[in-house]
Amino acid sequence: MFRTVLTLSPFGLFLASVERLLSKGIQATPPSFIRGILKAASDPEIISFAGGLPNPISFPQEELLESMERIVKVYGSSVFQYSITAGLPELRQYIANRYNRRFGLHLTTDNILITTGSQQALDLIAKVLLDARDGVIVEKPTYLAAIQAFSLQQPVFYPVELSEDGLNTEQLEKALDHNVKFMYTIPDFQNPTGLTYSAQNRKRIYEILKDREIVLIEDDPYGELRFDGEHLPYIGAGRLPYSILLGTFSKTVTPGMRTGFIISENTELLKHISIAKEASDLHTNIFSQYLIWDYLTHHDLDAHIAKIKALYQKQAQAMMDAMDAYFPEGVQYTRPHGGMFLWVTLPEGISAMSLFPKALEKKVAFVPGDPFYIDMQNVNTMRLNYTNADCETIREGIRRLGEILKEI
Amino acid sequence: MFRTVLTLSPFGLFLASVERLLSKGIQATPPSFIRGILKAASDPEIISFAGGLPNPISFPQEELLESMERIVKVYGSSVFQYSITAGLPELRQYIANRYNRRFGLHLTTDNILITTGSQQALDLIAKVLLDARDGVIVEKPTYLAAIQAFSLQQPVFYPVELSEDGLNTEQLEKALDHNVKFMYTIPDFQNPTGLTYSAQNRKRIYEILKDREIVLIEDDPYGELRFDGEHLPYIGAGRLPYSILLGTFSKTVTPGMRTGFIISENTELLKHISIAKEASDLHTNIFSQYLIWDYLTHHDLDAHIAKIKALYQKQAQAMMDAMDAYFPEGVQYTRPHGGMFLWVTLPEGISAMSLFPKALEKKVAFVPGDPFYIDMQNVNTMRLNYTNADCETIREGIRRLGEILKEI
Repeated sequence: MFRTVLTLSPFGLFLASVERLLSKGIQATPPSFIRGILKAASDPEIISFAGGLPNPISFPQEELLESMERIVKVYGSSVFQYSITAGLPELRQYIANRYNRRFGLHLTTDNILITTGSQQALDLIAKVLLDARDGVIVEKPTYLAAIQAFSLQQPVFYPVELSEDGLNTEQLEKALDHNVKFMYTIPDFQNPTGLTYSAQNRKRIYEILKDREIVLIEDDPYGELRFDGEHLPYIGAGRLPYSILLGTFSKTVTPGMRTGFIISENTELLKHISIAKEASDLHTNIFSQYLIWDYLTHHDLDAHIAKIKALYQKQAQAMMDAMDAYFPEGVQYTRPHGGMFLWVTLPEGISAMSLFPKALEKKVAFVPGDPFYIDMQNVNTMRLNYTNADCETIREGIRRLGEILKEI
Repeated sequence: MFRTVLTLSPFGLFLASVERLLSKGIQATPPSFIRGILKAASDPEIISFAGGLPNPISFPQEELLESMERIVKVYGSSVFQYSITAGLPELRQYIANRYNRRFGLHLTTDNILITTGSQQALDLIAKVLLDARDGVIVEKPTYLAAIQAFSLQQPVFYPVELSEDGLNTEQLEKALDHNVKFMYTIPDFQNPTGLTYSAQNRKRIYEILKDREIVLIEDDPYGELRFDGEHLPYIGAGRLPYSILLGTFSKTVTPGMRTGFIISENTELLKHISIAKEASDLHTNIFSQYLIWDYLTHHDLDAHIAKIKALYQKQAQAMMDAMDAYFPEGVQYTRPHGGMFLWVTLPEGISAMSLFPKALEKKVAFVPGDPFYIDMQNVNTMRLNYTNADCETIREGIRRLGEILKEI
């Protein structure tokens, strides 16, 4: 074994270096980029479009407090005791019923596994499917915390370009020539771009995947938040043999309680994911599962979601109107039909990252595009969140951003 | 890519086989042994010593409900919103203060990371430190869910025998000749054996480890539950450069809310664990963190723990008295000074596993020793839990078990 390496820390303590002990997986995992930015943007004077926080209007606080009182009274120690790995059967049944009714699926409780937020679903799937150097297809750009979760298993990423219509299916077919274990998609109001795959694009992807032994993950945290147009059918859910659909209560009830779920009709796959879940945290917080289930069965979720959607639509519109007014020509942006984000493309060659310090000086923050790509730096894109500021503030923030953009 | 393999499931659905998609890690992870047993023992007529459930007396239900009302009122949307990965600063400060006061440590909030139960701590540490075939030293026998969590990273296990005095230090020194990344121990009221390392054994282990670049994990879920004798000093906490101490509120407040914590003075190591945590579930349920913190600061935790300990001591004594009365000669058992379990050793050559079906017939359940060992089957040991049945029931269960043992 190696001898201990001790260095003197600023506080006078001996800090032992850990470099030589670290796994290849953690070394391959990108540092916590966004959290760093959020810290820089935590100054309350800053108008932040950097976060991904739902508006507090989405937390039904009074109703949840009522439900807390009820479940403690009715279920007593069961809401505080250890529980089963798959999750509260009543909550799983509720989820199955809702998806069956809304999307014509044929789910039972056996098709649902409750996770500690959707983020855990990404971690579990990577654990179950990936060995080092296995292939993973992702959107270009894609959700940065998915890159983080998958990186722990050291896969090879094959990014496929995303545009207004959806995924580039030519690139997709080429990517499938590699040893690919799964493909990760966010077809509705994608994070970070706000884009939605078209019906035709979905159909084409289905055709490409239908005879292949590859898992399709459809991550759908924002699907309930469509404020424009009609819901489009899932690509694989209910139809592809290796389909996984991810959902969450983070955007409709509360993100702080970390309650998400995996849906799959492939119960064999789900069984392995469940073993990984048991090894990872035994089970998801059972109090929160009872709480959310009780809330859902005592209130009209759709009426609650309608309020959230109305607000987000107003906020998105305010941001787009302000961009039309204040952004110089040559700056483009996506027009989301739902969700929480939109995506700005600057003129070729302009690094959004290089604008970030200037924006902070003017007390406005965004996320430069870099962390949403595999191994790309100084890209000319940025993500803006519109759900967590009022329309007045959004307008002022975009005005400030416009001033910076006019200087480039 | 492979073609899809479809088989007809009992329900007439086509179930696609996933065998060829599975990672080596999940294939190396033992199936959920105990959960299987618990299912078999879920018949309410069965007297079960198989689980590891704290007694519901340990959940301060009324006080927690009061705290729920208070935190929703005082902190509003903050208890429902996304939060930071490290955990609620106020809760981390409370933990630091308690450990500093009780054990003379010098912790700050920076030394504490809140985890989704202690189980997640095991998963995160394995992610950060282990590549396939790296060495891990464990007790023989050890906590079965630790074997599960570590197995996902495909390490080589080096089990070191545990006896009344603690770890076999000769075997420990030999195990350290291998490429070992960390050593996992439960020095107080070990799961499954109920054994506690002696002061001398701890000192000797410290001496062996002190100049080595190896992480020592002291998992201490039961330390607060000592009902006999004085607390013994930690082996490495506050003294070894690569020390990790694990704690939890599962045995003192509520296990259902999955709130545990990692303590380390090695902030560099903790930084990497925090990145792994962010990739795994972003952060631990923030509502539960506020709740537990509010409960702890409004009530006397020590007085609450005193009640739990008094009950567990009575229950442990009832079990030992019954074993003295009903077990045949040649059957030995450990006498725990705290915690939740004791460990029975049958005469050489008797498989505890083979007795399990007979016990179920007599409506009594235990956990055969097998899943607590690496690659050992039909061992002559079993784990008994005494915290979740009243003394009368414990006596009756042991009487039935005695009848079976007399037949062997």
